[in-house]
Amino acid sequence: MSKIAVLGYGVVGSGTVELFYKNKEKIISKVGKDLDIKYILDIRDFPDSPYADKFTKNFDDIINDPEVTIVAEVIGGLKFSYGYVKACLEKGKNVVTSNKELVAEKGAELLKIAAEHNCNFLFEASTGGAIPIIRPLHQCLAANDITAIAGILNGTTNFILTKMINEQMAFDDALAMAQKLGYAEQDPTADIEGHDACRKICILASLAFGKHVYPKWVHCEGITKLTLEDVMYAENWGGEIKLIGSVKKCADGKILPMVRPAFVCNNNQLSHISDVFNGIMVYGDAVDEVMFYGRGAGKLPTASAIVADIADAAKMNGTSISQTWEDSADDSFIADYKDDVVSVYVRTNGVPAEKISAAFGTVEYLSRDNQPDGELAFIAPAMPERKFDEKLESLGGEVLGKIRVLELD
Amino acid sequence: MSKIAVLGYGVVGSGTVELFYKNKEKIISKVGKDLDIKYILDIRDFPDSPYADKFTKNFDDIINDPEVTIVAEVIGGLKFSYGYVKACLEKGKNVVTSNKELVAEKGAELLKIAAEHNCNFLFEASTGGAIPIIRPLHQCLAANDITAIAGILNGTTNFILTKMINEQMAFDDALAMAQKLGYAEQDPTADIEGHDACRKICILASLAFGKHVYPKWVHCEGITKLTLEDVMYAENWGGEIKLIGSVKKCADGKILPMVRPAFVCNNNQLSHISDVFNGIMVYGDAVDEVMFYGRGAGKLPTASAIVADIADAAKMNGTSISQTWEDSADDSFIADYKDDVVSVYVRTNGVPAEKISAAFGTVEYLSRDNQPDGELAFIAPAMPERKFDEKLESLGGEVLGKIRVLELD
Repeated sequence: MSKIAVLGYGVVGSGTVELFYKNKEKIISKVGKDLDIKYILDIRDFPDSPYADKFTKNFDDIINDPEVTIVAEVIGGLKFSYGYVKACLEKGKNVVTSNKELVAEKGAELLKIAAEHNCNFLFEASTGGAIPIIRPLHQCLAANDITAIAGILNGTTNFILTKMINEQMAFDDALAMAQKLGYAEQDPTADIEGHDACRKICILASLAFGKHVYPKWVHCEGITKLTLEDVMYAENWGGEIKLIGSVKKCADGKILPMVRPAFVCNNNQLSHISDVFNGIMVYGDAVDEVMFYGRGAGKLPTASAIVADIADAAKMNGTSISQTWEDSADDSFIADYKDDVVSVYVRTNGVPAEKISAAFGTVEYLSRDNQPDGELAFIAPAMPERKFDEKLESLGGEVLGKIRVLELD
Repeated sequence: MSKIAVLGYGVVGSGTVELFYKNKEKIISKVGKDLDIKYILDIRDFPDSPYADKFTKNFDDIINDPEVTIVAEVIGGLKFSYGYVKACLEKGKNVVTSNKELVAEKGAELLKIAAEHNCNFLFEASTGGAIPIIRPLHQCLAANDITAIAGILNGTTNFILTKMINEQMAFDDALAMAQKLGYAEQDPTADIEGHDACRKICILASLAFGKHVYPKWVHCEGITKLTLEDVMYAENWGGEIKLIGSVKKCADGKILPMVRPAFVCNNNQLSHISDVFNGIMVYGDAVDEVMFYGRGAGKLPTASAIVADIADAAKMNGTSISQTWEDSADDSFIADYKDDVVSVYVRTNGVPAEKISAAFGTVEYLSRDNQPDGELAFIAPAMPERKFDEKLESLGGEVLGKIRVLELD
C-alpha cells in the first residue's frame, strides 16, 4: 500500500483527487499495488467535501507520517512549495508536481536531493499539461541525439493568437475574451510576456541537454506588440504567427533557448494548433521529427499527468530513475541569440524600396488588403540577427513590426 | 553489462545496430549500466561490415548464451520470429520487436510468457515507427479511462492519399509513385487493403482495453476503391479522406475496432497529416484528446523505437513491467460495426433527389468541379450502418462511392 498526500486543493489539486478516485481501480491494476490518498493539505476548510476527513492544515502531519511515500505538490509558486518539496525528498518521499516555476528554478537541486535519497522527483504535469512529453522525451527518444525542440507551450497566448488570426480580433479584445473565459489571469503578464512558456522551455531544454537552463538566461519576447497587420502578412507569406518556445543545439556545441512570436510555415504541424491547445515538436537524429499535441492546461488534463506520475512513483518506490540533469554554474553553454542566423519579417512605414534593397539585397515582399501607401512588409534573407539589426537600423523610417521566421532543422 | 542480440540484419536491423553505436555513450548514460551488441543473426554473410565479428547464422549461439539478456527481433513475419521470441522469453531474456504481425497475432501469449519468466516483451516500434505511443498510452495516460483511439497508422496509404488530394493524381499513379520511391512493396496488398493498419489498431486496442483483439475480428476496408471524385467532394465538405484505424468504447461496454477510409474534418488534427507521416489521436476522460505525430516507418525512425526499448529492457532487467493484456477466448466483446451510428458520404449516379429525400430525409449535398448531370453526392444523416445500408439499397440507381465520416467523440 502506498499512501499519497496532495499539497494544495485548488483547481489542479481538486482535479487530482477527483480523477484518482474516479479511475482508482484501473490505476491500481496498472500499478500492481494498492494506493490511496491519506492527506490533503490546504489552509482553507472544506467541511462539505467527500474527502473532509483527509484534510489537514499541518504539513508536519505529512512529513512525519512514514506511510506517506508519494507527495503531489500542486500549490504552485515557490514560497511554500520549495520548502515542502525539499523536505519531502530529504525524507525519501517521492514528489510529483505540476509546478513549472519550481522545476525551472530549482529542478537541478531537487533532482539531486531525490537521487541522494533514493526517491523520485517527477514533473510530467509541469510542461504541456495533459500531453505526455517529459517521459517520452527522456525515455522513448533515449536513442536520439536531440537537435531541437520547438513548442506552443502556452494555451492562453495561443487562444489570443487564434482569435486574431481566425476572427481578426485585435490583441486587446482577444485578451479581454481570454480573461472572460477564464483562460487568462486578471494580471496576464506571465502568459502574454512569455514567462510561462519560458519556464517550460527551460524544463525541456534541461532534460534534453542535461544541464539546468535557468529562465533568466533565456531571451524571451511576448506577444503584446503583435498587430492584425502582422497576422495578415503572415497569412500572405503562407503561415501563422505563434508564440514559440524553442531550444536548439548550435554548431559550437552551445544551446540556444528562446521564446518569441514567430512566423510558422503552414507545412509545419505547429501552424495547425489552435485555441488553447499546445503542441511540442522534437527533432532528433533518428526520429527526424515527432510532435506531441493536446491540452496544455486545465483541471483534469493537468490532473491526468499528475496521477500518471503518482502511478509511476508507486511502481518505482525505492529506486531513483535516471530522468535528471546537472546543475550549471553559469550560462557559458547558452548561445547568444544575436549570433543566430535568422530570416526576419519586417513591416516598415516610409522606407523606400531602394533603401531596403541597398540594406538587404533581394527580399520577399508581402502584401495585405488595404495596404496603405508607404507601408512595406518583407522577409529579409537569413543572416545573424546582430547583422540584421544593424541593417535595419540603417534603413531609417519607421519599423512597425519585426518577427522572426521559425527555422530549426 | 547487458549484452544484446539483434535478430535480422535487414533495413531495421542494420538501422538498429547503426543507431546503437552512433549514440552509444548517451544511451549508456541514460540506462546507467554498460551495454553492447554481442550477436547479429542473419543467414546472409556480411564480411565487409564493421560488425563482421558479431554475425552468426546459428540461433543457438544466442539462446544458449547467458550473457545475452536482451534480444531485438527485427526479422518480421511469423515464420522464424515467433519461435525465436518464444524461446528467448522462456529463457528469461527480454525481447524487443518491431514486428506488428507478431504482436497482433501472438501478443497475449508472448506477454504471458514474459510475465511468467520475469522478463519483458516490448514493442514500441511495432506501431507508429518513431512515434512514442505504446509507452505513453500505457504509462503517461494511465490515469485515464480511454474512450477511443484513431490514427493514420500506415504511411504508404497516407502518401498515396496525399498525392491524390494535393496533386489530383489517380490512385494507380500514386501507388506506382509510392512503389518507385520505395514506400510501397511490389505486392502492396498489406498496405492498400488496410491489413497493416489493422495489425496496428489491434495492438493499440489490446493495450488500451486490456484484451487481445485479433486482426480477423476487425472490419477492414482499404483505399483501392477511392476516386479523385471522392477526394473532391471531401474537400467541398471541408475535410480530407484518410485511412483511419480506430477503436472506440461503445455504450454497451463492447469495443469497436475498425479500419476504413474516412472523411476527416479539417478541424481534426489528423486531417493535417500528410505524406508518409503517421498520427495517432487518443481520447480519454481526463486528457480530452492528445495526438502523437511522426514518421511511422523507415530505417532510423524504427530503430529509434527499438533502441529506446533496448534501453528500457536494460534498466528493468529482472522485473516484468505491467504493460500487458489478457488473451480473449472469443470476439464477444467486439461490437458489430453495422450497429454503429455513422454519417456516411454517398456518391450516386442516376438517382433522383426525391428518392434520396424519401430514403434519408434532409441530406447535405456536396458539389465538385465538372460534376456531370445525374451525379449526386451527399452526406446522409447519422444512423446505424445497418439501417443506412437498407436505405441505400432502396435508392436504386448506381452507388459510385460510400465513405464513412470520422466521428469518435
